[in-house]
Amino acid sequence: MDRPGLVAAGQAVEAESFRIIDREMGAHAFPPEQWEVVRRVIHTTGDFDYADRIRFRPESLAAGVQALRAGASIFADTRMIQVGLSPWRLGWFGNPVVVPAAEPEAQAAAEQQATTRTAAAFRNRARELEGSVVAVGNAPTALLEVVRLAREENLRPALVVGVPVGFVNAEESKTLLWETESLPCITVLGRKGGSTVAVAVLHALLELARRHPA
Amino acid sequence: MDRPGLVAAGQAVEAESFRIIDREMGAHAFPPEQWEVVRRVIHTTGDFDYADRIRFRPESLAAGVQALRAGASIFADTRMIQVGLSPWRLGWFGNPVVVPAAEPEAQAAAEQQATTRTAAAFRNRARELEGSVVAVGNAPTALLEVVRLAREENLRPALVVGVPVGFVNAEESKTLLWETESLPCITVLGRKGGSTVAVAVLHALLELARRHPA
Repeated sequence: MDRPGLVAAGQAVEAESFRIIDREMGAHAFPPEQWEVVRRVIHTTGDFDYADRIRFRPESLAAGVQALRAGASIFADTRMIQVGLSPWRLGWFGNPVVVPAAEPEAQAAAEQQATTRTAAAFRNRARELEGSVVAVGNAPTALLEVVRLAREENLRPALVVGVPVGFVNAEESKTLLWETESLPCITVLGRKGGSTVAVAVLHALLELARRHPA
Repeated sequence: MDRPGLVAAGQAVEAESFRIIDREMGAHAFPPEQWEVVRRVIHTTGDFDYADRIRFRPESLAAGVQALRAGASIFADTRMIQVGLSPWRLGWFGNPVVVPAAEPEAQAAAEQQATTRTAAAFRNRARELEGSVVAVGNAPTALLEVVRLAREENLRPALVVGVPVGFVNAEESKTLLWETESLPCITVLGRKGGSTVAVAVLHALLELARRHPA
């Protein structure tokens, strides 16, 4: 983990980046807390296009912040999300990060259920997803499984950060997430997204949680 | 690691994605092997803009493929790159993946040298970078250090995949890389890039290495 000196240097670069993004973005309609999320996604991708594609279900951002502040687990579809999250930010509220697909039993479950490892792993951990923050950066099948669990089995995570990237089923899975009004979510419509985008959203929520304690 | 059945299912999705990208891209001037790299970057980002921004130094792609085929180490600036690389592809030629910044001694080196952990870690491992494939997805300081080592200390990696993302020094570091003609490189000019982009480039090179054995 970084020591304070280097974290401070990194934060100075981050602050300067945010000033540039604020300036180039100009006027926009995002409320301040949403803008913190959008800005960090732009920072992570170098791509202002995300400002047009990101969607927040009302109250979802607040629900995610509150859950993280209470120490909720983060269930991610990729190890990239897990290692991309900064240890010091995770340390503020002690949020565990779980990647069910990386666990040994996921392989057998996927073969048995004839689905992807990620989707089978999320299905097997469905009860634990209740009240958690779910982050999907890569696997549309995992996001579709979360949507199915919500629709058919009444699953209610605190927040779904659903941002899989790609050309086959990614867009469809995010549209379906957005149409599933019972699911609190932050998503990016269209093809763009990815594990780095999921990490950026989660970092923004952790920063918000730290700055506005309950 | 995935078993063959699930790898095959994933590859079917990948093949369909590639067909969509080929169709939407239409005519272009990339030679076939370069196009395999560009297409995989588009696949990973959902963003055709990369086709305009990617740059290949002549012979660099072939040099990277040859080095990987010979088992060269991959030196990465982030753990996200390390875990994003598929174990089965790394297994084809037994390429080790090293993240110098993640090693315990990197912290002290950074403080001593008053630079970032990543840059200090690359500097300390400079001899091992010789002949390796260097991948930078996040830290402009790391890329600038590789450029400095090449210019001042005659370092010659087999290939530098230099694609840091961001608003402060990322663009400048990639422009400098591109102008350093002694460095074999693949880069993405401008602000865009990131660890997922670096992984996509490396995956494409590993696929090329496997399909065209020496």
